Amino acid sequence: MIDDEEFLRDKVPMTKQEIRILTLAKAQLNVDSIVADIGAGTGSITIEAAKLSSRGKIFAVERKAEAIELIKRNVEKFSVENVTIIHAEAPDGLDALPELDAAIIGGSGGKLDKILDALSTKLKVGGRVVVNAITIQTAANVVEYFRAHGWTYEAIHVQITRFERVGSHDMAKALNPVYIISARRIL
Amino acid sequence: MIDDEEFLRDKVPMTKQEIRILTLAKAQLNVDSIVADIGAGTGSITIEAAKLSSRGKIFAVERKAEAIELIKRNVEKFSVENVTIIHAEAPDGLDALPELDAAIIGGSGGKLDKILDALSTKLKVGGRVVVNAITIQTAANVVEYFRAHGWTYEAIHVQITRFERVGSHDMAKALNPVYIISARRIL
Amino acid sequence: MIDDEEFLRDKVPMTKQEIRILTLAKAQLNVDSIVADIGAGTGSITIEAAKLSSRGKIFAVERKAEAIELIKRNVEKFSVENVTIIHAEAPDGLDALPELDAAIIGGSGGKLDKILDALSTKLKVGGRVVVNAITIQTAANVVEYFRAHGWTYEAIHVQITRFERVGSHDMAKALNPVYIISARRIL
Amino acid sequence: MIDDEEFLRDKVPMTKQEIRILTLAKAQLNVDSIVADIGAGTGSITIEAAKLSSRGKIFAVERKAEAIELIKRNVEKFSVENVTIIHAEAPDGLDALPELDAAIIGGSGGKLDKILDALSTKLKVGGRVVVNAITIQTAANVVEYFRAHGWTYEAIHVQITRFERVGSHDMAKALNPVYIISARRIL
Repeated sequence: MIDDEEFLRDKVPMTKQEIRILTLAKAQLNVDSIVADIGAGTGSITIEAAKLSSRGKIFAVERKAEAIELIKRNVEKFSVENVTIIHAEAPDGLDALPELDAAIIGGSGGKLDKILDALSTKLKVGGRVVVNAITIQTAANVVEYFRAHGWTYEAIHVQITRFERVGSHDMAKALNPVYIISARRIL
Repeated sequence: MIDDEEFLRDKVPMTKQEIRILTLAKAQLNVDSIVADIGAGTGSITIEAAKLSSRGKIFAVERKAEAIELIKRNVEKFSVENVTIIHAEAPDGLDALPELDAAIIGGSGGKLDKILDALSTKLKVGGRVVVNAITIQTAANVVEYFRAHGWTYEAIHVQITRFERVGSHDMAKALNPVYIISARRIL
Repeated sequence: MIDDEEFLRDKVPMTKQEIRILTLAKAQLNVDSIVADIGAGTGSITIEAAKLSSRGKIFAVERKAEAIELIKRNVEKFSVENVTIIHAEAPDGLDALPELDAAIIGGSGGKLDKILDALSTKLKVGGRVVVNAITIQTAANVVEYFRAHGWTYEAIHVQITRFERVGSHDMAKALNPVYIISARRIL
Repeated sequence: MIDDEEFLRDKVPMTKQEIRILTLAKAQLNVDSIVADIGAGTGSITIEAAKLSSRGKIFAVERKAEAIELIKRNVEKFSVENVTIIHAEAPDGLDALPELDAAIIGGSGGKLDKILDALSTKLKVGGRVVVNAITIQTAANVVEYFRAHGWTYEAIHVQITRFERVGSHDMAKALNPVYIISARRIL
């Protein structure tokens, strides 16, 4: 796995390493997976997915021009060749994608339901969607969506604290917690 | 309880409200308690203790001149009249104190064992000491001290996340976690 | 504060000590407060509130017969004389209460909005309501209610871990996390 | 990744899925890695490592007969063929191992320093050791060992809460937190 500091990030919020690891594990990628990273931000999830699914394809969908630029630079920095960057506000841009094995939603710009609607047909049966939520509302909305549409889902809340060396001591520094909600298309 | 923003704090680290609340509850102060606040920092614990033990007395012990200044200003701002400020590096300064009902240790400058030794005689039998620790080492040292000296102790780890309003959403913002270790002098 | 083990509890879920402490602090009780404890469960919050507001009055509202019995026994055990127990499913039973300084909602049986509606007139202006939520849905609903009705609120997520002595080691045992959402009636 | 319920576990404590995922990620296994799983318990880490390093080799070291039996049954259940089970109390049993790319320590029976001493020569330069600690003492000891011996290390504290469906709500159920401390042999 890649250390946080290795990514170019400017002031774009980035999914931290431990959250990337858990998110990608819940997405159950394999070497051939076709993946959408929606609200790709810095592209940190995109890059890790591109390495894990080295014979597959990753579509990074992002609405902000500044972030698009950053994803391009990170793709270049890490020399991954299986990434397609799509400058659009999801669900716009999802139509053109091929069938997906997995979708990871890091940001939804308030259009989560429409994105999940689009994924309902775009994901293969058995495909997985994993949402990272940092607000109560998004967590609640995602869970309600999955309940209402009969998806099997799993929700966890992850609180990571890192210890920083300060002289002879290791001091606790909390990362902000994240809800990771994952579901599998069964129909 | 007082909101964090009400305290003057400059750049001195301050114990956050929820940690103050739990720390003071574990110290079991009453209206007449005689209390030492060791490593008093901004004086936030001192001020809250002074209000809870309004007929008692609070001794704020602090080694840093900058923090001493801040404690003075907070004592003035909150108009508490039962606080004595002691500019010393504990255990220095503890000798001159009267018998204590409780001691709260927010900072120890690496002299925790000596401070606890001093409190062993300075605390009344039945008196309580509560330590806030933010490093693995301090947490481990405190627990080992209490084990080695036969004190009855209780240790908890407290992780508070506050939600901040960002538009229509409430976003999780973690505070750094704190170990709260409390013990009672029984002999 | 009272240790968890001191309360009679059978199999009724009980608010743990640290959560009781924070909840009561957020309710800002004083010695004369008139308080409703809604969904009182074992009565652990009721008992602590009765001690804090020793010249005030606590109304424990609870729908389950088994819990009502437990509250009675705890009231007796702790010899508090300012508690009135109301066997009803809130908002039923709230009408008959006097004006309140504070209301604490530990359980709502799915009728949270109606309970909050009732409290909107029953709480004094400046009075406080504090909700303990253990599900994503309740946390989200409470926040949405306060937003929709223009209440000023504060939401935190509290994760306490206790360390249990196991031989020469102190082993981390997590309590289930609780959202504590508090608001103040301003109009 | 494998769900917790799929492992046979009897009453042996098992590393939960999210902790397995993070632990294995920190160990940076590749398809050819030679790995020791020390204090293998149910073998859940062993099995996952065996799948990740399918062309490598996993040595599961465990002192308890009951757990050895369980590891055997899990190896059989998951049909992994690159696992060697060693019934010994580490550091006993480590001498006979080949050079390691990674070692994961889930349990140390109080012999952590000796195990780390043994790994200091057994790990390849650049190899990684990852320790899961559930007590303050073990966390502190591991960090002190790495400091004293000049290893570059990283320590995190991981608190996972799972949400369980209870009727129309998703209720928070905390897992016990774990310290994950990882280091790399550099000399």
